[in-house]
Amino acid sequence: MKKLTIIGVGLMGGSLALAAKKNIAGITVCGFARSDKSYRKLKKLPFLDIVERDLKSAVKDADLVAVALPVFAAADCFREIAGFLKPGTIVFDLSSTKEEIENSARKYLPKNISFVGCHPICGSEKTGAEHSVGDLYRDALCLITAKEKDPATITIAQFWSALGMKVAFLNAKAHDKMLGAISHLPHVVSFALINSLDEGYLKFAPPSLCDMTRIAGSPASVWVDILFSNKKNVSSSLRSYAKSLKQFEAILAGGKKAAAVKFIEKANTRRDIVRNDLV
Amino acid sequence: MKKLTIIGVGLMGGSLALAAKKNIAGITVCGFARSDKSYRKLKKLPFLDIVERDLKSAVKDADLVAVALPVFAAADCFREIAGFLKPGTIVFDLSSTKEEIENSARKYLPKNISFVGCHPICGSEKTGAEHSVGDLYRDALCLITAKEKDPATITIAQFWSALGMKVAFLNAKAHDKMLGAISHLPHVVSFALINSLDEGYLKFAPPSLCDMTRIAGSPASVWVDILFSNKKNVSSSLRSYAKSLKQFEAILAGGKKAAAVKFIEKANTRRDIVRNDLV
Repeated sequence: MKKLTIIGVGLMGGSLALAAKKNIAGITVCGFARSDKSYRKLKKLPFLDIVERDLKSAVKDADLVAVALPVFAAADCFREIAGFLKPGTIVFDLSSTKEEIENSARKYLPKNISFVGCHPICGSEKTGAEHSVGDLYRDALCLITAKEKDPATITIAQFWSALGMKVAFLNAKAHDKMLGAISHLPHVVSFALINSLDEGYLKFAPPSLCDMTRIAGSPASVWVDILFSNKKNVSSSLRSYAKSLKQFEAILAGGKKAAAVKFIEKANTRRDIVRNDLV
Repeated sequence: MKKLTIIGVGLMGGSLALAAKKNIAGITVCGFARSDKSYRKLKKLPFLDIVERDLKSAVKDADLVAVALPVFAAADCFREIAGFLKPGTIVFDLSSTKEEIENSARKYLPKNISFVGCHPICGSEKTGAEHSVGDLYRDALCLITAKEKDPATITIAQFWSALGMKVAFLNAKAHDKMLGAISHLPHVVSFALINSLDEGYLKFAPPSLCDMTRIAGSPASVWVDILFSNKKNVSSSLRSYAKSLKQFEAILAGGKKAAAVKFIEKANTRRDIVRNDLV
């Protein structure tokens, strides 16, 4: 592996560049800048060996191309780069939903290019390459939705491992269903929670509300794409959640303390599983 | 101020003892143990000067009595201690709801005893005096629901300030309405969220879900009392929240991306207020 080109050098892409330079000896990292403004910003980052304004120049001799863009932009990007890649290049992405992305990769990328769908489960509510963190990926889990035994998949799994990630494999459909529940739903819950409160109360927020709204600071530019590209699963998770909420509302309205204890103890037990999570 | 007696030496009461010994020169701290088991446990804590098994002995010569029990137990406790207190003793509590508590204090405590309702906005999802933290109260906000100019209120405000807390005053009704929104609602949201998820997914929880479910580990013994003693306000907050959630569901189902951007950006702006909070 000699040259890695990153399209979309924001917080995730920038942290990827930083982590790659730190952990992989001899790698050349190239960042693509779509605008002059972005070019000037990326030129200041010490962890990019090359910054390119021209997409063709950026990808034409890359061994790996990482697409770290919002979901629909990533899907679009494959169409743009398809004609510029050398045979054997491996393209991978970092998007939070995978079916949309895989459909697009299948549609636009030629047969001699491998695509490996990836979802590193980490991030930050901050945005921008200037907030890049070299350890963002370390010890976190990367879900890979490509076939485990394919040579390209093996290369990419080794790449993430070199950055300190654990990898796991599942198909895009199962991925999107699970992430709809464990990641996309919590974001909607957090957005809706903070929007429902009296604004004057917010400055009195106790630690509980601070925690519950950390991800309410997540950028619309990223999250609208994630939620709309996984609409069916998010809606279905929202329905299950609304049911659970209604259940507690009825318990409270009915004054059923024993049922409330059971409801909270179930949550306690489940929290112990989350506590022992992989990330 | 010479002797502080704490009834309910759990995480909050234990941390109170620890902080008082650390910050107030010459104070004597006495802990009341309701059972032999609890007595043996409390005797091991280096920050309690006295441990009493007998309630009368614990409170009879106390200058300050802190009641750090779940809401309904605290309300009950006033009846138990009323006959044992010396004139001039100041009783205060640490409960998360205040109307229920104030009604009980008014009903049971004699006229020569002052009561000051307090709600230090801090805590932990852990329980038990063995997890006491000396800095639990430092820099956090204490809401006081008694009259600001009363001598007893001034004494108690000085006490919390000595522990490093900021204090603010508001009446019990306004307190319970606000806390129903910014603390009790988030707990119900967290309990309901984790209970709605497929259990098999939990071990893959990303950082977002970890944050959103930290308070789902909060003990039923404390939270059933809080939620049921503030039922009206919690129900009303739940209704506003369900409305906000439904609004986003409709945006998603209708494919209205511009409205989704607006919804998320509103959440982002509000999150900036929480970020600059007092605690």
